[in-house]
Amino acid sequence: MSRTELKTVLSPDELPRNYYNILHDLPEPLPPPLDPGTLKPMSPEPLLRLFARECVMQEVSTQEFIPIPEEVREAYLRLGRPTPLYRARRLEEKLQTPAKIFFKREDLNPAGSHKPNTAIPQAYYHRKEGTARLTTETGAGQWGTALALASALFDIDLTVYMTRSSYEQKPYRRTLMEVYGAEVFASPSRRTKAGSKFLDKDPSHPGSLGIAISEAIEDCVTHDDTKYSLGSVLNHVLTHQSVVGQEAKVQMQQFDADPDYIVGCIGGGSNFAGLSYPFMRDKLRGKSGAQFVAAEPKAVPSTTKGSYRYDFADTGETTPLLKMFTVGHAYQCPPIHAGGLRYHGKAPSMCMLIDKGYMRSVAYSQNEVMEAGLTFAQTEGIVAAPESNHAVKATIDLALECKRKGEAKTILFNLSGHGLLDLKAYEDKLGGRLVDYEPDQAALSASMSAVPRVG
Amino acid sequence: MSRTELKTVLSPDELPRNYYNILHDLPEPLPPPLDPGTLKPMSPEPLLRLFARECVMQEVSTQEFIPIPEEVREAYLRLGRPTPLYRARRLEEKLQTPAKIFFKREDLNPAGSHKPNTAIPQAYYHRKEGTARLTTETGAGQWGTALALASALFDIDLTVYMTRSSYEQKPYRRTLMEVYGAEVFASPSRRTKAGSKFLDKDPSHPGSLGIAISEAIEDCVTHDDTKYSLGSVLNHVLTHQSVVGQEAKVQMQQFDADPDYIVGCIGGGSNFAGLSYPFMRDKLRGKSGAQFVAAEPKAVPSTTKGSYRYDFADTGETTPLLKMFTVGHAYQCPPIHAGGLRYHGKAPSMCMLIDKGYMRSVAYSQNEVMEAGLTFAQTEGIVAAPESNHAVKATIDLALECKRKGEAKTILFNLSGHGLLDLKAYEDKLGGRLVDYEPDQAALSASMSAVPRVG
Repeated sequence: MSRTELKTVLSPDELPRNYYNILHDLPEPLPPPLDPGTLKPMSPEPLLRLFARECVMQEVSTQEFIPIPEEVREAYLRLGRPTPLYRARRLEEKLQTPAKIFFKREDLNPAGSHKPNTAIPQAYYHRKEGTARLTTETGAGQWGTALALASALFDIDLTVYMTRSSYEQKPYRRTLMEVYGAEVFASPSRRTKAGSKFLDKDPSHPGSLGIAISEAIEDCVTHDDTKYSLGSVLNHVLTHQSVVGQEAKVQMQQFDADPDYIVGCIGGGSNFAGLSYPFMRDKLRGKSGAQFVAAEPKAVPSTTKGSYRYDFADTGETTPLLKMFTVGHAYQCPPIHAGGLRYHGKAPSMCMLIDKGYMRSVAYSQNEVMEAGLTFAQTEGIVAAPESNHAVKATIDLALECKRKGEAKTILFNLSGHGLLDLKAYEDKLGGRLVDYEPDQAALSASMSAVPRVG
Repeated sequence: MSRTELKTVLSPDELPRNYYNILHDLPEPLPPPLDPGTLKPMSPEPLLRLFARECVMQEVSTQEFIPIPEEVREAYLRLGRPTPLYRARRLEEKLQTPAKIFFKREDLNPAGSHKPNTAIPQAYYHRKEGTARLTTETGAGQWGTALALASALFDIDLTVYMTRSSYEQKPYRRTLMEVYGAEVFASPSRRTKAGSKFLDKDPSHPGSLGIAISEAIEDCVTHDDTKYSLGSVLNHVLTHQSVVGQEAKVQMQQFDADPDYIVGCIGGGSNFAGLSYPFMRDKLRGKSGAQFVAAEPKAVPSTTKGSYRYDFADTGETTPLLKMFTVGHAYQCPPIHAGGLRYHGKAPSMCMLIDKGYMRSVAYSQNEVMEAGLTFAQTEGIVAAPESNHAVKATIDLALECKRKGEAKTILFNLSGHGLLDLKAYEDKLGGRLVDYEPDQAALSASMSAVPRVG
């Protein structure tokens, strides 16, 4: 085996120069966000109070390519882009599969996940537009960490509202954000009316991502110099992530390989959109027969057991309604270790692609995915995030299917993050203490009953 | 600024093909290890029971270059070699220094430190020579993690004796080793006579690296199929680390820069030897005027307050005597967060170079180094290991000296590991809870009194 069969590394000048925006190529226009009061399409103007103007423009743009600013490209280089693409030879050998398995390394930056791909441009645009301070929410902490890092690089103050249960269970995630200079509060907090309301009811309220969003937005709109930043679901976020797939396309060509399967895990959908949309572009143009496989947890089965309809993007019912696969914004996401996949809905563009059959999805229990993670660590040497292990599990299943059928297919998956701050999940798996969750029909019906009835 | 001014990335075929062995170029032969009973030079034969034959041959070799086996090069590629070399532009700007600062990224592999550079060849040689099982000790866990990873890649069973205090305080380091398939025991344990002796005296004995070494060696010599592996100090270990400096030399040329200062932290000495020896080769041949600066903790001041004389390599007095800078093998290393620097001696070859003035050393308190770590994280975006922050601190001091003198010198340091499993150190620093330690003369005299009198 020659060494170049193991990985490809792009040079700094091969970093993409444009973001790819899939709204240019969707089979039909994306259903617009609706005002929850009037159920009429919303204009983007109210978003300008929260987001960077450039991000709002990108959110509604159908322009195919959006130039990446030079300052953003420089920050990407500093944080490890372009990232390598590996062939998982030892995993293939372990599985005795004729399939070729490749994976993109989005775990190699200091924040440890794909999240800086959008945190960097968001911080940059805010800085350029004069924002002095940002607020955001974080659950497991990956997004908060990435935005703290990006804010440090662009000298913006950052306040993070972190779900109290995570704040207490994952003190080192909090420390990491503080190392980058961010101010981190357990949510619900006494700093906002929204938070106080929940604390009045329950002084030891564990919090939720929905409450943290409400607090971050209230903090933003009540401070003149402050704006807000979001880490997934929205179009502009997915567009920023397209650097992943653009690099991967070049790298797969260097391997002289063309993926038959493109695989990723989905929470909001941004890491898988990042890898897959540049390949999906070919499929939407009839130039590719690749299959796209999105893996989600059985505990939060948005696309496998949910419905494709309008729902709130947050638990607190403060956002516009988005057309997406959802298990209902009132769904109580079980405490699985893959915290980044604990979201009731999914990105609207990805949901349309799933609904129209361009992409399919599978669901796994956390024991299954952590078992796959152990196999991956012991063969490829890399300890993946519990979220990413959903993609590893789906990949292993496809490779074993290839083995049964004797098909030498090519599989590409996104290694969206490392698991060094999630070793509790591995400890619980090794100790046989990992609990699986799966909602029954009654639980799903209950949470779906709170979804607004539209049209 | 052009992008290539930020970092250089080598292609897979630029991975070094040979190790560089500084014993070929030392100003005089290294003083031989002595038998502690007879005080006569020891032959290498007894080492064959413990170490891989190839490692023992390398230990006493004065051959300049030792070929790197193709299987080892492949494993290096899998684990991220060649590693990038970065310019710390934002740190330079923050310090407003005319100095140029560069750093080598040894934090980017799955074990998170430079340790796999020697764990990989050691596991490979053992595998090739038919070893089925290895034992080793680990304190903070970096070495145990690296050898667990390497053992997984070469399908060798591994038993790790981990200092009980670390075992209990750093459960995730233990989990990480277990994820790679290693068996990990708190030391002292009931598995060995050595361990039992200490447990009999104190059932809750916190352990020490010296006791863990004794247990790992006893486990090895009492099991026929078992050998042993060590992660620093020895010549062959330092030789393996030379891949770091060989890559860095090529990369500095790509930057069109020649380092005036080469900086690293020292515990046993292997990471700094790895970066510096390929540059030292030029200095020893009169072809370079570069200065070499080794940074150690004030809490364990081997080279700044210790003596250059023969001492045991372990606390338990079971090893040969090595000529080195030591604060005495009985020295009680204070519980600083930089666990990898808690070693009473230093590598013999490095000690000779310090003694003869080819290299100098500095010492810092842990508050100083963690402050430097915060500055580095907020400018360059990378959270370094507490050990590596000693190198960061020495670099910052040199850069500020350049500022005072108006000298545009070039500084290169080794970023030997990341700090994602050491966030407690950052938490303590941010919370103002970090305690500084420094032995007084009485403490040093006491520990030195146990050092054997030789010659």
